[in-house]
Amino acid sequence: MRTSIATVCLSGGLVEKLHAASSAGFDGVEVFEPDLVAAAESPEEIRALADRLGLRLDLYQPFRDAEGVTEEAFAAVLHRAEAKFALMRRLGIDLMLVCSNVGTATIDDDEVSADQLRRLGDLAGRYDVRIAYEALAWGRYVDDYRRSARIVELADHPRVGLCLDSFHILSRGHHPAGIDEIDAERIFFLQLADAPALSMDVLSWSRHHRLFPGEGSFDLVGFLAHVVRAGYAGPLSLEVFNDTFRQSDPRRTARQALRSLRWLEDQTAARLAASAGLAGSMGSADALTRLTRAGAPTGFDFVEIRAADAGEVETVLEQLGFGFRGRHRSKQVRLWTSGAARVVCSEQQADGTEPRIAAVGFDVADPVAAAARAAELLAPAVARRTYAGEEVLPAFAAPDGTEIFVGHGGGWVAEFGGGTAGAAAPEGAVRAIDHVNLVQSWQDFDEAVLFYASVLALEPAPVAEVAGPAGLVRSQVMRSGRGEVRLPLNLLPAHQDDRQGHAQHVALACDDIVALARSARERGLVPLAVPANYYDDLAARFRLTDERLAELRDLDLLYDRDATGEYLHFYTPTVGGVFFEVIERRGAYDGYGAGNAPVRLASQLGR
Amino acid sequence: MRTSIATVCLSGGLVEKLHAASSAGFDGVEVFEPDLVAAAESPEEIRALADRLGLRLDLYQPFRDAEGVTEEAFAAVLHRAEAKFALMRRLGIDLMLVCSNVGTATIDDDEVSADQLRRLGDLAGRYDVRIAYEALAWGRYVDDYRRSARIVELADHPRVGLCLDSFHILSRGHHPAGIDEIDAERIFFLQLADAPALSMDVLSWSRHHRLFPGEGSFDLVGFLAHVVRAGYAGPLSLEVFNDTFRQSDPRRTARQALRSLRWLEDQTAARLAASAGLAGSMGSADALTRLTRAGAPTGFDFVEIRAADAGEVETVLEQLGFGFRGRHRSKQVRLWTSGAARVVCSEQQADGTEPRIAAVGFDVADPVAAAARAAELLAPAVARRTYAGEEVLPAFAAPDGTEIFVGHGGGWVAEFGGGTAGAAAPEGAVRAIDHVNLVQSWQDFDEAVLFYASVLALEPAPVAEVAGPAGLVRSQVMRSGRGEVRLPLNLLPAHQDDRQGHAQHVALACDDIVALARSARERGLVPLAVPANYYDDLAARFRLTDERLAELRDLDLLYDRDATGEYLHFYTPTVGGVFFEVIERRGAYDGYGAGNAPVRLASQLGR
Repeated sequence: MRTSIATVCLSGGLVEKLHAASSAGFDGVEVFEPDLVAAAESPEEIRALADRLGLRLDLYQPFRDAEGVTEEAFAAVLHRAEAKFALMRRLGIDLMLVCSNVGTATIDDDEVSADQLRRLGDLAGRYDVRIAYEALAWGRYVDDYRRSARIVELADHPRVGLCLDSFHILSRGHHPAGIDEIDAERIFFLQLADAPALSMDVLSWSRHHRLFPGEGSFDLVGFLAHVVRAGYAGPLSLEVFNDTFRQSDPRRTARQALRSLRWLEDQTAARLAASAGLAGSMGSADALTRLTRAGAPTGFDFVEIRAADAGEVETVLEQLGFGFRGRHRSKQVRLWTSGAARVVCSEQQADGTEPRIAAVGFDVADPVAAAARAAELLAPAVARRTYAGEEVLPAFAAPDGTEIFVGHGGGWVAEFGGGTAGAAAPEGAVRAIDHVNLVQSWQDFDEAVLFYASVLALEPAPVAEVAGPAGLVRSQVMRSGRGEVRLPLNLLPAHQDDRQGHAQHVALACDDIVALARSARERGLVPLAVPANYYDDLAARFRLTDERLAELRDLDLLYDRDATGEYLHFYTPTVGGVFFEVIERRGAYDGYGAGNAPVRLASQLGR
Repeated sequence: MRTSIATVCLSGGLVEKLHAASSAGFDGVEVFEPDLVAAAESPEEIRALADRLGLRLDLYQPFRDAEGVTEEAFAAVLHRAEAKFALMRRLGIDLMLVCSNVGTATIDDDEVSADQLRRLGDLAGRYDVRIAYEALAWGRYVDDYRRSARIVELADHPRVGLCLDSFHILSRGHHPAGIDEIDAERIFFLQLADAPALSMDVLSWSRHHRLFPGEGSFDLVGFLAHVVRAGYAGPLSLEVFNDTFRQSDPRRTARQALRSLRWLEDQTAARLAASAGLAGSMGSADALTRLTRAGAPTGFDFVEIRAADAGEVETVLEQLGFGFRGRHRSKQVRLWTSGAARVVCSEQQADGTEPRIAAVGFDVADPVAAAARAAELLAPAVARRTYAGEEVLPAFAAPDGTEIFVGHGGGWVAEFGGGTAGAAAPEGAVRAIDHVNLVQSWQDFDEAVLFYASVLALEPAPVAEVAGPAGLVRSQVMRSGRGEVRLPLNLLPAHQDDRQGHAQHVALACDDIVALARSARERGLVPLAVPANYYDDLAARFRLTDERLAELRDLDLLYDRDATGEYLHFYTPTVGGVFFEVIERRGAYDGYGAGNAPVRLASQLGR
C-alpha cells in the first residue's frame, strides 16, 4: 500500500523532514501545521520541493475544535477553516485532518456535530478539498471511533470522511472489529502508531511514548487486518512522536519508520492469509507488501571481537578453556572455539579502539533469503572482502552498527588453520554461546527492538529494569522461540558511556560451572570479585547448605533460583568494552540472574 | 527534628553515599539493602565509617513479603528475618522497615497479618531490634496507612510500630488527617517524598518520578503538620528516587535533599502556628527548624551579562534604546539602563566565553535576612571583592551557577560614572525587566524549582511544554505573588547544548512596542525574522485587520491573545548564549506567548 509519514515524527525543519522522508523511500507525508508555520519557505516552495522529491502531500493536520460548538463559535471555525482550505490549495493538498473537539465543545449531540461537519464539507467543496474526522482518545465528547464513524455517516457528505488512528483506538482499549462495518469509501485516511503498555494519562502517553509499529505492545497487525478487510486502499501513514525521535537524525528515523510499515504490511498479509479460510473477505490485502520468508536463526554461528590489540581477550579465552583454531587464510583474524562456541578475534591496528563486539554471526536455514529480507527492511548491507574459494556470508548492519552475519553450517571454519586445537577439551568446558548482551544507546534502543524482530524474527520479551549504582538499566531480551538465540539489549542510562560499567558481554554456557571456575582459576583467571555481603544475603534468601555457600563464595559464583531451576554464573574482568559471563542453567531455569546485576555493576565500577 | 536520608536517593557506592550524606549535614541515613549487598566493605566497616562521619544508621530497608502468608511460607520469612536481624546487630541498626506484602500474600486478614508481625516482633526482641510496618501504595491487600495502623494496633507489641511514607499515602489520594488519631509512640519512622501530579501506574510513578519536598505537587506541609500534631518526634527521613538523582553527584543531591527538609520544617512550623488558635495541639512543633523570614523579591535590581567581549551585547542594548550610564569606579563592568531596567555588562578576558547571564540581582526588603535564609538553605555563598565606600550586595549561587544578588534601593548605581546617560529616553522605551528566562540542564531543573521556591519564596506555576524543532522544551515559571519577578526555567532537551537554539534571555517590558520596534530598526537592529506563514496562520486564528497584520509582519512582531488581553513581542538576534525579547502586555494578559515559541526556536535554528 502507499506509505506516508507525518512530518511531526521527524526532527528538524520542514525542508529537512521532506528530504528525510523521500530518501527513506516514503510515497508521501502528512504536513503538520506547526512545521509549515515555522518554515521560512512559502507554501508554493514547499509544494515544488515535494514534487521534486517525488513526495505526495497527503494530509494537512491538525484542525482542532471544529464541531460540537455554538453557532457563534462555529462562525469563527468557518473563518479559520476557509483560510486553511485556501492554504491547502497553495500546497496542493486535498485532505485535512479534523480532530474531535477537545477545548471548545459545549454541545454533546451527534446531530449538531454532523451538521457542522457537513457545513465544513460544503465549504471544503468550494476549494475542492475534503476533510477526515478523527476521534481523539481525549476528545471532550467524541473519543471513540465508532462514534466518529456514526457522525460521519450522519453528515452524509461526499467531502466528509473518517480518519482512523491506531493509537487513539487501541490506547482506549477499543476493539478494532467495528472497523469491519465501516464503508471503506468513508475511510479517508489511516494513521498508525504503536506504543508500550503504560498506565498513564493518555495525553502524555500519546505525546511522549508513541512508537513505530513493532516497537511497542499494540496489536497493530490485528488492527490493520480489520482496516484492510474493510476495503481501505488509501495510504498507510505513520503518526508517531516521542522524545527520542524529536532529537534524532530525521533520515535515520524515516528509514526506521518505513521498515516498521513494511514489516507491518507483511505480518498483516500473513495474518489475513491464515484466517482467509475462516473469515472470507481479504479486502485490499493484495496491495500489501510481502517480504521474503526467512525464519528465526537456529543458533549462534560466531561472535567477532575487534580491537587494535586482541591479546588480552585471547588470554581470557584461553583461561576459559577455549582452543586456538588458528589464523584465517587471508584475513587478519584468529578463531577460538570451545564446543559449539566460536569467537573470532580481529585486529585492526589503524582502528586504535578497545575490544568491542564487532559482529554476531547467526546460523539460519537460508542465508540468501535472510539477506534479501534484511535488504527489503532497509538494513544497510555490509561488504567484507572475500577471496576465491572462501565462503561468502551475507552481512548487514544493526542500528548500533554491529555487523550481523547470516550463514549455514559453519563451513567457513575450515578456512582457519595452524592452531593448537585438537587438544583435549578441559573438564566442564564451555559448550555454546548462550546469549550476547548488546548495550544500546537511547537513540538505538527502540529501533534495535524493531530491527531484530523484523529482520531476524526474534521475539521481544517484556522489558525489565535493573538498578545499578549509576542509574536504572532498562533491559529487553530478543529471543528465538525455543531460546536457541538470545540477545538481551541493555539501554545505557542517558548521559553515560559504556566505560561506566556498561560493557557488552558474551555469555557462555557450560554443564559444570564449578569445575570450569576451578580450572579457569588454575589457568590464571581472576574472576570479578563478589562481595561477602552478597553471600550473607544469599543465605538469608535461600536455604543453601554451608558447604554449597562456601563453594559459591570461594569461586565468586553468583546464584539465582526460581520455581523452574537454578542459575549459576561468574564474570571475567572487562577488557576494553567487553567481558565474558560463564553460566550454567540447571533444570528449566530460563532467565538471566537479573537480580544479581546490581552486584555485578557495582563490582565492575569498583564501588 | 533529626534528619535522615535513604541511601537509595544517592548515586554511587555505599561509602560514597555515606560521605555525601554526612557532608551535606544529615544526622542519619536509612541503609538500602542492595547498597549493602553490593558493597565490598563488611557491615562492621560500614558501621565504623558511619560513626566516624557522625551519621546514625536509622533504618535497615526494605524487608518484603513478610505477612499475610501461609504458615509454611512464614517459616521461610522467619529464617530470612533472623539473618537480617543478626546483620542489623553487626551494623548497629535497631529498626527494620517491613513493607506490606506485594508478592506472596494469600491471606487477606488483619488478624493473620497482626499475628505474623507479632511473632516477627518476638524474634526482633531476641536481637534487641524493632520493626516498622509500612503500607505500600501497591500492596496486595494492605495499601492504606489506616489499615497498616490497625494491624500494628492489633499486633500490640512493643517492637512492632508503623512507618509512614508520604508518597504511599498521598499518591493514593488518602487524606493524612487519620494520622492525628495514631498513637505517636506507634509511629516508629517517617519517610518523606514529593512527586509531580502524574496520572500513571503508581509503581512507575514511585520508582522514576519521586522528588524532594517542594519540587513536586504533594501537600507535604499539610502532611507533616498531621504527623507533628500526632506527636511524632523521630527523624524526618527522605526516601526519594528518580532517574536524575541516580545519575547525579551524590554530594550535590544530598545538599539539595537537606535544603528540602529545612524548607519543609519551616513551612510546617508556620502552618501549625497559623492554625494553632483553631486546632489546639501543636504536638512536637517546637522541634521543627525555623528559617529566617525573608519575603519574595519586589522586583529585578539588575541582570549581569558576562563575556570575554561584551561589545555585541552593548550594541544590541543601544539599539533597544538603553542609555550608557558609565563604568564602575573599581570593577571592569559597565551599566546600561532604560527606565527601571538595568543591565550590567562585565568583561572577563581570561574567561574566553561567549556572553551569558552571569548574575541576576533582586530587590528585597531586607538583604541581610535574605542572605541569612539562603545560607540556612545551604546555598553556596558567592564572594565579590568590594572596596571602601561601595555597597555590599550579598550573593549566593543558584543550582546552575547563576549568581543571585539581593539588594535594596539600588544605591550601587551611583558607583557608575562617565556615561552618556541623561540623554532623552527614546519614544516607547523599555520600561523594566519583565522576566529572565534561565535555561536549565536536566541535572539542575528540579533543584532549581526548589531553590527559587525556598530561598526566594517564588511560586512555581504549572509546567508547560513547548515543541521545538529539536525536541520538547519543558518550561516552568517561578514568580512572585503579583508577578513583580518572573523567572521562566526552561529545561534543555536531553543530549543538547544551548547552542541548539536554547539560549537564555532577558525579556524587557515596554508600553509601545510598535514605536520601539521602529526606533530600534532605525538604530540598526535586525530583529529575529518571523516567517510569512506565521502571519497567514495568525490571520486564520484571529480576526485582525489587514493593517494590523501588515504592521506585525513588517516589524517581525509576534502576537498572542487570550480572554484577558494581548501580548506582542519581538526578539533580538542571539549573541553568544543570550538574546533579548521585547514585550508589550495589553490588558491583563499574564502569559508569555508560549504558542509562538516553536516559531522562535525554528527561526533561531535557521530551519
